[in-house]
Amino acid sequence: MLLETTLNEIRPVDAAARRAVGDRLDSLTKPPGSLGRLESLAVELAGMQATERPRAARKLVVVMAADHGVCAEGISAYPQAVTAQMVANFNAGGAAINVLARHAGARVVVVDLGVAGAIPGRGHRDHRIAAGTRNLSHEPAMTPAQARQAVEIGIGLAQAEAAAGLDLLAGGDMGIGNTTASSILTALLTQAASTAVVGPGTGIEGEALARKRSVVAAAVAQQAGWRAEQRDPGLHLLAAVGGFEIAGLAGLMLGAASRGVPFVLDGFITTAAALVAVVICPAVREFLIASHQSAEPGHALALAHLGLQPLLQWQLRLGEGSGAALVFPLLDAACKIVAEMATFAEAGVAGKT
Amino acid sequence: MLLETTLNEIRPVDAAARRAVGDRLDSLTKPPGSLGRLESLAVELAGMQATERPRAARKLVVVMAADHGVCAEGISAYPQAVTAQMVANFNAGGAAINVLARHAGARVVVVDLGVAGAIPGRGHRDHRIAAGTRNLSHEPAMTPAQARQAVEIGIGLAQAEAAAGLDLLAGGDMGIGNTTASSILTALLTQAASTAVVGPGTGIEGEALARKRSVVAAAVAQQAGWRAEQRDPGLHLLAAVGGFEIAGLAGLMLGAASRGVPFVLDGFITTAAALVAVVICPAVREFLIASHQSAEPGHALALAHLGLQPLLQWQLRLGEGSGAALVFPLLDAACKIVAEMATFAEAGVAGKT
Repeated sequence: MLLETTLNEIRPVDAAARRAVGDRLDSLTKPPGSLGRLESLAVELAGMQATERPRAARKLVVVMAADHGVCAEGISAYPQAVTAQMVANFNAGGAAINVLARHAGARVVVVDLGVAGAIPGRGHRDHRIAAGTRNLSHEPAMTPAQARQAVEIGIGLAQAEAAAGLDLLAGGDMGIGNTTASSILTALLTQAASTAVVGPGTGIEGEALARKRSVVAAAVAQQAGWRAEQRDPGLHLLAAVGGFEIAGLAGLMLGAASRGVPFVLDGFITTAAALVAVVICPAVREFLIASHQSAEPGHALALAHLGLQPLLQWQLRLGEGSGAALVFPLLDAACKIVAEMATFAEAGVAGKT
Repeated sequence: MLLETTLNEIRPVDAAARRAVGDRLDSLTKPPGSLGRLESLAVELAGMQATERPRAARKLVVVMAADHGVCAEGISAYPQAVTAQMVANFNAGGAAINVLARHAGARVVVVDLGVAGAIPGRGHRDHRIAAGTRNLSHEPAMTPAQARQAVEIGIGLAQAEAAAGLDLLAGGDMGIGNTTASSILTALLTQAASTAVVGPGTGIEGEALARKRSVVAAAVAQQAGWRAEQRDPGLHLLAAVGGFEIAGLAGLMLGAASRGVPFVLDGFITTAAALVAVVICPAVREFLIASHQSAEPGHALALAHLGLQPLLQWQLRLGEGSGAALVFPLLDAACKIVAEMATFAEAGVAGKT
């Protein structure tokens, strides 16, 4: 079983590598600690990659796409067909994630895990599990077997990319309706009130927002006892709520952690997936970097629950991995500080008096 | 007189270009506004550059270096010789600003405006006005003519680079003792208490920090009536407090604004220079982008006074232009979103229901 094998392979981050990079940073021509978060990022990456020279040269964004049966409840501002249309847009290179990944020198891999309609054009990977999840308001969104399948697709993809050579992995999402599923997962896993978690998503208001609140509240009430009764509570929750892309993202994180590859979170959806990944394996937490804190209200709650400090607070709320790709150059900068700056001794600069 | 000519050339930002970019952003394949600050940055750059296609390809960091007579009061953690040694380090390419500018695809120009000691090696530009400023605790740091000279060197440099082709200009500082001068300027110009402004700079504590507080408080008290009595209050303040590099940075901003080149602030020192530049010409404010909010306590006060929102809150406190170079790739990303993303119509993606 790939999931169980992978969980056995996840090790703590490397404390010695962290110390070595911290010592080197203090020897470089700057007052100690004066590059702030850039220095702590370098230390974090070194621990995750288990190396004294963290790298961010080989970067990948995996965009997981799937549809949500709960869209039948009228909880989104966009029609479900947009999921397939946006996958075609990713394939053509015209979406925000394409622009930002190209700018950062990162590759983009788009995965169809269960888009409802036909996808015009090609370029994505077909791992379609079903034509969208079922409607979580009436039945479990997936079968337990489908939840495992989606997670293991993510694991396999991350591990294959790590084997081919990868320094940083980011995840992105595309799935009309997925802030509803993410709100349910976030409320259940952070124990926040569903009213504090639900936000406008792509931009709903009025009656549609009221319907979304009601769908989320009902699902949270129904799943309130999730942890006590289940042997595999993470997979159980994924099956109950969906979606395929959230499960796939959780799998990506597990696969990345099992290979010492730092995983860069994007916004609300990938962070909801991280909440589940950490239920499945708490050690995954140490391999996560929070790129930004989004405008969606539940995101701050999820990040706080994970104890992650976002690099940007830019009111992003697009998804696709866009926030993660945006910070790739900052992570690259942290690595280059360690690799390229001169020490006080090399530069002949005096230290503190 | 270059200063007066330049002030006459500074125009408001282009409102039509801002609107055009805002409209285009709303036509791209994403929910309107969902790229948050990245979108507002694109709009700001468009207004400054007066174009519907803002650009960030040609980037320059000018590092202004000079020494401060007030170092004789024992207010810094590092010996004054470090200023010259760090200029040599910039010339050799081993400092943080070299690494971060290289990473961002930006050039670095280092200017000696008045370093006290001999600078080993070469590569910087020699615009030396004097061997450091005089000790502001006992006499004006510069003559009025020197203050004007430093400002006009900055103006000339920015205008020459703009004529050669420049999309973004950033300023950086190197000058042991310059957080003392910047604290005085910030307290005077924001009307904050000097105790709220003074911080550890490169890392002083104990008696040295007490001396710094006392030097700043005395200078603030002495200059309290600066605005009422002077014809050129900005130049008067620069002459009283220094330093050459702060005056040079203010000049860079005036020169950039006069040519429609966005100016990216670094930390506490460049923002103190911006406070002065805005006294000299309030319209300069619209051409400034705040890269980050530093760990130095006065920086937040200065940014709030200018009404600028920092892009990063990363506890940086190095100077050299390091924070400004760090955000260059983010500004580049904002421009590429405008230039490279597909519209809903081009991509065949449905809009809101």
